Amino acid sequence: MTVSYQLDVSSGNPLLFLRLLGRWRGSIWKSVVGDLFVWLLFYYAIYFAYRYAFSKQLQTVFEEISIHTDDRMKYLPLTFMLGFFVTTVFERWRSALNVMPFIESVALSVAVLLPGKGREDRLTRRAIIRYVVLHQILVFRDISMRVRRRFPTLKYVVDAGFMRQEELDVLESVNQESSQTYWVPINWANSLALVAHQQKLIDQPTAFNNVIFAIKEFRVAMETLIKFDAIPIPIAYPQVVFLAVRVYFAICLVSRQFLISDMKSKTQMDWPVPIMTVLEFIFVIGWMKVAEVLLNPLGEDDDDFEVNSIIDNNISRGMAIVDTTHGYHPDLVDDVFSD
Amino acid sequence: MTVSYQLDVSSGNPLLFLRLLGRWRGSIWKSVVGDLFVWLLFYYAIYFAYRYAFSKQLQTVFEEISIHTDDRMKYLPLTFMLGFFVTTVFERWRSALNVMPFIESVALSVAVLLPGKGREDRLTRRAIIRYVVLHQILVFRDISMRVRRRFPTLKYVVDAGFMRQEELDVLESVNQESSQTYWVPINWANSLALVAHQQKLIDQPTAFNNVIFAIKEFRVAMETLIKFDAIPIPIAYPQVVFLAVRVYFAICLVSRQFLISDMKSKTQMDWPVPIMTVLEFIFVIGWMKVAEVLLNPLGEDDDDFEVNSIIDNNISRGMAIVDTTHGYHPDLVDDVFSD
Amino acid sequence: MTVSYQLDVSSGNPLLFLRLLGRWRGSIWKSVVGDLFVWLLFYYAIYFAYRYAFSKQLQTVFEEISIHTDDRMKYLPLTFMLGFFVTTVFERWRSALNVMPFIESVALSVAVLLPGKGREDRLTRRAIIRYVVLHQILVFRDISMRVRRRFPTLKYVVDAGFMRQEELDVLESVNQESSQTYWVPINWANSLALVAHQQKLIDQPTAFNNVIFAIKEFRVAMETLIKFDAIPIPIAYPQVVFLAVRVYFAICLVSRQFLISDMKSKTQMDWPVPIMTVLEFIFVIGWMKVAEVLLNPLGEDDDDFEVNSIIDNNISRGMAIVDTTHGYHPDLVDDVFSD
Amino acid sequence: MTVSYQLDVSSGNPLLFLRLLGRWRGSIWKSVVGDLFVWLLFYYAIYFAYRYAFSKQLQTVFEEISIHTDDRMKYLPLTFMLGFFVTTVFERWRSALNVMPFIESVALSVAVLLPGKGREDRLTRRAIIRYVVLHQILVFRDISMRVRRRFPTLKYVVDAGFMRQEELDVLESVNQESSQTYWVPINWANSLALVAHQQKLIDQPTAFNNVIFAIKEFRVAMETLIKFDAIPIPIAYPQVVFLAVRVYFAICLVSRQFLISDMKSKTQMDWPVPIMTVLEFIFVIGWMKVAEVLLNPLGEDDDDFEVNSIIDNNISRGMAIVDTTHGYHPDLVDDVFSD
Amino acid sequence: MTVSYQLDVSSGNPLLFLRLLGRWRGSIWKSVVGDLFVWLLFYYAIYFAYRYAFSKQLQTVFEEISIHTDDRMKYLPLTFMLGFFVTTVFERWRSALNVMPFIESVALSVAVLLPGKGREDRLTRRAIIRYVVLHQILVFRDISMRVRRRFPTLKYVVDAGFMRQEELDVLESVNQESSQTYWVPINWANSLALVAHQQKLIDQPTAFNNVIFAIKEFRVAMETLIKFDAIPIPIAYPQVVFLAVRVYFAICLVSRQFLISDMKSKTQMDWPVPIMTVLEFIFVIGWMKVAEVLLNPLGEDDDDFEVNSIIDNNISRGMAIVDTTHGYHPDLVDDVFSD
Repeated sequence: MTVSYQLDVSSGNPLLFLRLLGRWRGSIWKSVVGDLFVWLLFYYAIYFAYRYAFSKQLQTVFEEISIHTDDRMKYLPLTFMLGFFVTTVFERWRSALNVMPFIESVALSVAVLLPGKGREDRLTRRAIIRYVVLHQILVFRDISMRVRRRFPTLKYVVDAGFMRQEELDVLESVNQESSQTYWVPINWANSLALVAHQQKLIDQPTAFNNVIFAIKEFRVAMETLIKFDAIPIPIAYPQVVFLAVRVYFAICLVSRQFLISDMKSKTQMDWPVPIMTVLEFIFVIGWMKVAEVLLNPLGEDDDDFEVNSIIDNNISRGMAIVDTTHGYHPDLVDDVFSD
Repeated sequence: MTVSYQLDVSSGNPLLFLRLLGRWRGSIWKSVVGDLFVWLLFYYAIYFAYRYAFSKQLQTVFEEISIHTDDRMKYLPLTFMLGFFVTTVFERWRSALNVMPFIESVALSVAVLLPGKGREDRLTRRAIIRYVVLHQILVFRDISMRVRRRFPTLKYVVDAGFMRQEELDVLESVNQESSQTYWVPINWANSLALVAHQQKLIDQPTAFNNVIFAIKEFRVAMETLIKFDAIPIPIAYPQVVFLAVRVYFAICLVSRQFLISDMKSKTQMDWPVPIMTVLEFIFVIGWMKVAEVLLNPLGEDDDDFEVNSIIDNNISRGMAIVDTTHGYHPDLVDDVFSD
Repeated sequence: MTVSYQLDVSSGNPLLFLRLLGRWRGSIWKSVVGDLFVWLLFYYAIYFAYRYAFSKQLQTVFEEISIHTDDRMKYLPLTFMLGFFVTTVFERWRSALNVMPFIESVALSVAVLLPGKGREDRLTRRAIIRYVVLHQILVFRDISMRVRRRFPTLKYVVDAGFMRQEELDVLESVNQESSQTYWVPINWANSLALVAHQQKLIDQPTAFNNVIFAIKEFRVAMETLIKFDAIPIPIAYPQVVFLAVRVYFAICLVSRQFLISDMKSKTQMDWPVPIMTVLEFIFVIGWMKVAEVLLNPLGEDDDDFEVNSIIDNNISRGMAIVDTTHGYHPDLVDDVFSD
Repeated sequence: MTVSYQLDVSSGNPLLFLRLLGRWRGSIWKSVVGDLFVWLLFYYAIYFAYRYAFSKQLQTVFEEISIHTDDRMKYLPLTFMLGFFVTTVFERWRSALNVMPFIESVALSVAVLLPGKGREDRLTRRAIIRYVVLHQILVFRDISMRVRRRFPTLKYVVDAGFMRQEELDVLESVNQESSQTYWVPINWANSLALVAHQQKLIDQPTAFNNVIFAIKEFRVAMETLIKFDAIPIPIAYPQVVFLAVRVYFAICLVSRQFLISDMKSKTQMDWPVPIMTVLEFIFVIGWMKVAEVLLNPLGEDDDDFEVNSIIDNNISRGMAIVDTTHGYHPDLVDDVFSD
Repeated sequence: MTVSYQLDVSSGNPLLFLRLLGRWRGSIWKSVVGDLFVWLLFYYAIYFAYRYAFSKQLQTVFEEISIHTDDRMKYLPLTFMLGFFVTTVFERWRSALNVMPFIESVALSVAVLLPGKGREDRLTRRAIIRYVVLHQILVFRDISMRVRRRFPTLKYVVDAGFMRQEELDVLESVNQESSQTYWVPINWANSLALVAHQQKLIDQPTAFNNVIFAIKEFRVAMETLIKFDAIPIPIAYPQVVFLAVRVYFAICLVSRQFLISDMKSKTQMDWPVPIMTVLEFIFVIGWMKVAEVLLNPLGEDDDDFEVNSIIDNNISRGMAIVDTTHGYHPDLVDDVFSD
């Protein structure tokens, strides 16, 4: 589920920080704690090996390596790479999610431009809404793991009522020619609108035009999400960044050990916990996790977008707009702002 | 209230700086001063403990820790993280607020396209404006703390005149089916426009079309604000940044103490106030506060957007446009630019 | 006046640099030279006090402070903060100024869609142009210091011919209800277009539609500028950045003094002018000045936008398009590209 | 082929990293491994020359050079340059690829607006789709190496069925006048639509209008890709960045050698492998490779866009939409959401 | 001429680098080599003065200054400033050039919406294209040095056939009122379209509407380029950045000299060439040159946009579309994708 915290940050007062920190779901704690545990396991394995298992000579070699690498940690342009990468990924995530289409535009247009009260009018309106949402489901099944899990086969879509068996049969007959047939229900919705126009249920050309346009807008928004999925960030980019981060902390396992022979150094001390490195680990890995989550916003992370509830909202709101609440408006009376 | 200072920066002259600094509301002083006070409390608690309460041995340990951590402060990529984060948050804030819809587009369109002078024309125009603003209120109640506080229940909206009791009843009957019913007043406005079109109050299809389109533009702008609220920045991102900043300054409590044994060092001195660290605190925390404020622009900070006055302006301007000043234009006479 | 230098940079050859440097108006020299003078005053006051007025003991204390602060200058994340801030401000400046509306779109639409040669056609066209420019003036009076200075009261607008006295009376009668009445002239222009349409001066619905749309486009562009003014960057952001820069250089007054006791240090020397710090001052303060200027592009800096000439151009070009040069086209003859 | 890994990153769990790393195609390993091999060859050539072939005196000179350059590596602002460059290139890449047009918009518009079942209707629809895809092929032949390779001459396009021989003859007769004749098939498609409109196959002006508009949208998207190709990033930018990276690592060949005389230094050691420099090489070169790949997204890298399959999908989906599945819609019956 | 290298980077293989480097026109070598030569002249002048002309005492002073400044080079935030500046300039360059209008949209619209075969139809279409291109030339004469050089006076435009003498006379009579009369040919084109509409050469209101809209789109794109020219980046910004870079390297003339007395230092050596500083010079100056070139993309650098060829292509393609190839479409026959 998308983790919502907007109300918590309604005012930037000092407690905001504590309230934000207290959140577990989708939080830095959750994403970092496992990695940190593994890292500490390795750290203490090396810690005890170096102090109690190594011979004097091996200790000296270890210390040489440790000092050598510690001195050269700066060769790895970690934070710089990460900063640019997170910003890039974030921008892509934002511009993709911003197009996520809601049903209101289509439904309100259909409702006002195909206003008849007859059964055929009503059924046409409902069918157009259903086909548009069906289109959304077909697309999401291919780009969102959660929707795929909800509808592992098209049969599940039929069972949930978004498609009838006959429609599935037609869809699958098309299926044999090209794999992406997301557009089929849109074609149906357009055809329905055309028939309604020819029967004067949709009265004017401009009205017909606008219904077609509202459906198109929805489809184009979905097409943008398809492109988002089809044209990922070149794989080498996340690879190089994620690898740099992991390798950096792998080296830290050696370079950040407290060295016995180094204890006379003024800035050195013999602590059981490498506290500053642990903090660095938390912040840098946490930062990296943000990028990992953002790489696929339609995935299954806590913070990923709740696509299934979008679908449910779209069908339920869409039907309410074109049917239940359709064609009603309160009586015209004077309002209190009248004078 | 949004803090306006544009006129102060009308010219970039030397006094600009002083004038900007002198502002208290929404300013850096206000947001930082509390935090700084708490930080100094802790600082002096440790200061006195270290100097007067600690044994010689404890002092030595403390100094070791202090030197050790001070030497490793650079492990925490503070400014880098903060710089990218503030820029990211700012960009999101700007693109969200830029869509904030004003009533003028709807009202001017309705005024010119439904130009009749009759009572029904007038009432239709007024009702459309009212429903559009009502839509705005319904959305803002869910995403702005201030509007929620102004209208804790829908009854308050009725009392303020934006909705009549009968309308509320209809709205709540819809309410039972799906939680977000922001669109209901838009449906009413559309239906009114349709009736007006059928009765030839709105004469031409293109005119009807444009009224529907103006209403839609307003609703789509509000939908963008809804998305802004529904798809926040993944919580881990602010968490990791804010935590990094706080932890950094928590460590400073120890690492930036002036050490007794260190007084012979050339760059060290024994001051009662850690002036450079205090300055760092002010600038970095102040920078972070900017991000905190920007995270939710519809919140209750001094700098957050005055949503309630938007609503009031929209209803008052909208009514003036479609009613009071409606259908008037000055006589056509020669102007002074004539030759 | 906006400082134009595009032709100077027509080619990136070596002299470009000198030509750019030679500019005084709106230049770095002008904005920095005053600040630098003040800074140097303080610098030499401290310089002479430290060398000739201080006791030996005071000198020692001063030197301790100087060394201590110099060593900790890096605590202040100056360039980083400034880099991100300037980029952010620049981006906002650019996207705001890019919407600045010119009259051509409105005027060319009105000219071709209301093509009649009669007196009423002509007057209608002229009045629409005048009302649109009047709208622009009303908005600019509230957001641009220069336009405000040109038209301190609405009477001045009347005197300049943009509004007639009767129109001012109507405008002010509206004024009593809500403070922002920028839209009133737009309402007039729309009403004129409607009357023209009803009298078949504007023939077709699509043509009427387009005239209304052209006027709307202009108004929406102005609305974007209003939002730019109404939703400034949260004040804390420029405050924290500008304060950081000033404090930094205030500390430099002490930390960058050449210390007498330090003269044996290899990298130290005894110069009358702190040349490197002066250069740093010029570049960093110059960079900051860019941000100050960009914060309010409608202000009165050399580099700010020449809003008054926009207004003058708009009225003069608009009138020329809809009247003087209206309805003419050269005869149709073969062109030289014919075969 | 575009390398797709979105499903792998469906959830940001710890294994994500390993799964990403395991990918070879388009990955960092593949792009870096060759360069690294060459670099190591040079490194060991110098390594052995310095240790075993050089005279004592030459060794001393070499060591002087090595220390001197190592101390000045920081003069080269490598990561900074690279970070900004990659971000810039990425942004351009993203905004270019986002316009990549799919056939659905054109095909769905043509299908619903030219709905006749007659042979001429069908042929017109098919021809419009074919001409639009032909336009895409003509453009891609000039800007994508892969499409050029598939269609080395226009004869290949004819053979593949996208163009008939007669059409090629017409196209080539135009060819003599100006080199870019991408627009010719669009002109044909427009003319077909006009004829269909004149014969009332496309019934209403608004419908005709929309068909023309859909074709135009497609062409404008292709025009954006043409501009992307015609206005590359100024060559000096990638030159300076790529050169800086290569020169940096060329210098590393000398400056990062383990020096014999330096072995007493605490941070120095005598390893056969310059492990930290190799890691730096992998990350920085890998980062640079991302930029190289992104510079021309229509090229032939693993990660570049699969333009040929776009063409195939467009023709096959387009034909399916306007012909096979055309004009059908399922019967109107009650849906399960009815009550 | 724009330097095209897209085909060279078709694949990011190892030779890409060499191919890119080999380019001379518009390349880093060309832009840096002159500056480097001048810098080296000064460097060696100082080099020989210091070593052979200076007295012992002067040498000591020189060395003090050299060491002092070298130690403080870090005060100048060079790369940071440059990185942000280049990114900012690049973004502006890209968004400006992306709107560069091609004639296709206008020409294809005119061709299909004014489809008559008569002489008047043909002449009208040709004249509209010519006036639109003439508008482009008038604008470019004021913002592009190259077009200005091609058409120093309007007489040259007449001679090239883009304007007839009578048209120039009319244009110049308008000229007396306001300096920017770019819009005059657009007014002509609009008037022609109106006459054609009134004579039913353009049949339907929507068609007339679209012709006017296509012309408007073109003009608005040109208006964006005018704004790009009229609202440059505030001059202080490039001044401060370019000055910082030059001053930095001026100081390097002193601070990067190899000092005689410093030869015992481990990291120092006595080379005739300051190789690392030369490399820094090449990369930083090269980076800066990118910004200089991007500042005015319509200038005369190798990398600037070939505006003259745009004009030639626009007139030749436009005429071909509306005349030579006009109104033709291949016969409708079955295609190979038929079954």
